[in-house]
Amino acid sequence: MRLLLCGYGASSKRVAALAKERGHEIVGVLLLRGQSADGYPVYRPDERLPEADAVIDFSHPVLTKALLAADTGLPLVIATTGEKEVLIEQMKEKADRQPIFFSANMSYGVHILTEIVRYATSLLPAFDIEMTERHHRKKVDAPSGTLIKLYDAIASARPDVHPVHDRSRTEGARTDGEIGIHSVRGGTITGEHEVLFAGHDETITIAHHAQSKDIFASGALDVAERLIHKENGYYTYDNLGI
Amino acid sequence: MRLLLCGYGASSKRVAALAKERGHEIVGVLLLRGQSADGYPVYRPDERLPEADAVIDFSHPVLTKALLAADTGLPLVIATTGEKEVLIEQMKEKADRQPIFFSANMSYGVHILTEIVRYATSLLPAFDIEMTERHHRKKVDAPSGTLIKLYDAIASARPDVHPVHDRSRTEGARTDGEIGIHSVRGGTITGEHEVLFAGHDETITIAHHAQSKDIFASGALDVAERLIHKENGYYTYDNLGI
Amino acid sequence: MRLLLCGYGASSKRVAALAKERGHEIVGVLLLRGQSADGYPVYRPDERLPEADAVIDFSHPVLTKALLAADTGLPLVIATTGEKEVLIEQMKEKADRQPIFFSANMSYGVHILTEIVRYATSLLPAFDIEMTERHHRKKVDAPSGTLIKLYDAIASARPDVHPVHDRSRTEGARTDGEIGIHSVRGGTITGEHEVLFAGHDETITIAHHAQSKDIFASGALDVAERLIHKENGYYTYDNLGI
Amino acid sequence: MRLLLCGYGASSKRVAALAKERGHEIVGVLLLRGQSADGYPVYRPDERLPEADAVIDFSHPVLTKALLAADTGLPLVIATTGEKEVLIEQMKEKADRQPIFFSANMSYGVHILTEIVRYATSLLPAFDIEMTERHHRKKVDAPSGTLIKLYDAIASARPDVHPVHDRSRTEGARTDGEIGIHSVRGGTITGEHEVLFAGHDETITIAHHAQSKDIFASGALDVAERLIHKENGYYTYDNLGI
Repeated sequence: MRLLLCGYGASSKRVAALAKERGHEIVGVLLLRGQSADGYPVYRPDERLPEADAVIDFSHPVLTKALLAADTGLPLVIATTGEKEVLIEQMKEKADRQPIFFSANMSYGVHILTEIVRYATSLLPAFDIEMTERHHRKKVDAPSGTLIKLYDAIASARPDVHPVHDRSRTEGARTDGEIGIHSVRGGTITGEHEVLFAGHDETITIAHHAQSKDIFASGALDVAERLIHKENGYYTYDNLGI
Repeated sequence: MRLLLCGYGASSKRVAALAKERGHEIVGVLLLRGQSADGYPVYRPDERLPEADAVIDFSHPVLTKALLAADTGLPLVIATTGEKEVLIEQMKEKADRQPIFFSANMSYGVHILTEIVRYATSLLPAFDIEMTERHHRKKVDAPSGTLIKLYDAIASARPDVHPVHDRSRTEGARTDGEIGIHSVRGGTITGEHEVLFAGHDETITIAHHAQSKDIFASGALDVAERLIHKENGYYTYDNLGI
Repeated sequence: MRLLLCGYGASSKRVAALAKERGHEIVGVLLLRGQSADGYPVYRPDERLPEADAVIDFSHPVLTKALLAADTGLPLVIATTGEKEVLIEQMKEKADRQPIFFSANMSYGVHILTEIVRYATSLLPAFDIEMTERHHRKKVDAPSGTLIKLYDAIASARPDVHPVHDRSRTEGARTDGEIGIHSVRGGTITGEHEVLFAGHDETITIAHHAQSKDIFASGALDVAERLIHKENGYYTYDNLGI
Repeated sequence: MRLLLCGYGASSKRVAALAKERGHEIVGVLLLRGQSADGYPVYRPDERLPEADAVIDFSHPVLTKALLAADTGLPLVIATTGEKEVLIEQMKEKADRQPIFFSANMSYGVHILTEIVRYATSLLPAFDIEMTERHHRKKVDAPSGTLIKLYDAIASARPDVHPVHDRSRTEGARTDGEIGIHSVRGGTITGEHEVLFAGHDETITIAHHAQSKDIFASGALDVAERLIHKENGYYTYDNLGI
């Protein structure tokens, strides 16, 4: 594939490196102002763009909106975080002219993890749920965005839950609606998420371990490789058919 | 509930103990010959039986067939192993006169584990699968029956797989169709099963840990508590609605 | 062995059951007042006691003090919690007349876990440490007593640490002195403790899983079987030689 | 530091990359013949070498012997595998003229893991031991070299053990001397090792997870940073004092 990157942060750079390994070509980088991009030609989204098969966008809402407004007609793989509702609305408006895929978390494994946890939650209504995530010592937010995504999937199947972050401060035994949230920080751990379902004399655990941040970049490439064969429309992992 | 036990082996004894804790009553034990049963009244299945709400059967095919032939009209919870196809056929024949539930593994958690693993297998076609079970040092068979059940669920979704038991004897790298099978034995471990899905830079693990063999007895009681409210018919975990 | 039990709570009852399984005899139960004890003869510590080989004491400081004051001359296995310093002083005073073993946690595995964690802490000074314990939903205190014992072992090797119970409230990245403490609660989990050492691109995890509360009762019996062959003196797991 | 690399395979390249990140300088590469090395000046060990503070050697016995014979007088960090006994003898001979460090596995974590497992084995004589390693699907040998190193550490403390690779072929229950060996292969797993000690109603698990192969290169740099301050002599992780 001939790929345009939208944005040129850490994730886009990993997309560029992995794309080359897979035999794809980066034909340019879309930026709002003429910054440099390690030697790749730089374009504004509303300029005349080079021939390309797809755009992969790990940028920010302002640039993504400009990309959507530019009516490139190209298949778009969008992984931008922030202003989710607004962006989804604009993507759906443009989806009759080009295939557009959106996911705030481009890891296919994390997407599948979410589906498995949602399924397990529906099957285990009487089990207590506890969630743990582990990340490197430099991560400043807690809990992680992926844990929040998993929590939301659980809460949609079990509406009466609430998170508990510190059991050293609570009194009395655990109640049914609690979901204990545990954020482990240390070393250089890339990212681990674990959901525990604890019942009478048995537990079921569902865990995802990421080895490198490449799972986001390689997920976006997997999606692009499929999206270029799709008809116009709005896609997510739920209807892309990976 | 007033319960009749069919058979009086280790599992039936645990059912009796847990039933008492839950406030149920054991009104008798069904056996083919007049053996004793810790003071409970003993009946042959074709005798006149005391008033009861359900039968829980952890016995063997000969006794289960006699139970089915006796036309008790009572809700039956059947956990007998062996002669599976024959027994299921007979149960279905009798199911228009009474609700009959059957599972060769009465643990609800193991049943759900199997469903989750089946679902995950369908969603992760490009991931390598490896299976591990851990049991106490006295277990003589390997791999465990539950692991075989899980393997069958995986093989039905991914037909080209074959088990690999010893990688110290194989040559060359892993192939796509391999499923490594690992049987850990030690101490008094009750039973642990783990399925690993390993992909590019990420893994998903689904694990079940049993704390005690009571999960089978308490699973049978959970089922009986539901089955007595059901219409006549043949039930499994798939349509009982736990 | 002919055993006297001191106290007759849940742990003593498990000692009685396991002692029988091992072929030992319970010759009586020591209590302050003439309560009953499931048919075992009941004695006050200062009464004339039956012939016995050892006393196993899972009671409380008042009764333990009475046992020590009674000068029975018998080998004593003491697992009483509370008033630790006072009790140890009194045990050491009496230890020239009888062998006395003391541990607030009679599980040999937990004792060894503590030793391994202490050793690992001394060898991994640059690794971040995080601790997790998992217990059943009815446990009201958090973190567990065993986790606190492990934390103390770590803090004695790395004095500048402090516990962090809730990372959703902290700001900024993890600091060197933090030890994250995570208390998971759910179902009927007997007790799991895990210490994570996270370094640059590698982690070491040390974990203990208890399957049943019998580890305390069976630990006490293991100790008694050894203690009856020992000379007078004050013993702990550090000098008993298991 | 100004570093000379001995050999220029994958590990040496990682040392070069990580050395730069830490602010060190690569002043040349030692090779037997004048191959190129990504632009670094290439030397034979017996040539006149540039000023340097230490040599890091991830090469092969022939080159390592030439390095030792060259009498550079420089601190040497040697991670060569193969001909271990011969090399150690030669290193010890030269160690009165320069500090020489040797380890066949430069990961500090794996070294410490081995020490912890050795310590735990000595403390848990009655526990059953099982070992599991997990690696990527392309690894052809099984079990891994690190597992074998761990097995040797266990066997030196418990001489009557033997490995068991396939329990589906054994008959009867587990015996005391067995150590089950389990080699899991899948995806891109970097390297995980786990030793299970299973006793009566409790288990202790000691596990090491590697996130990247950088642990070997960064371990060598850690050692070099220390070794340049040491007196002449032969060093291993046991006496370097990390």
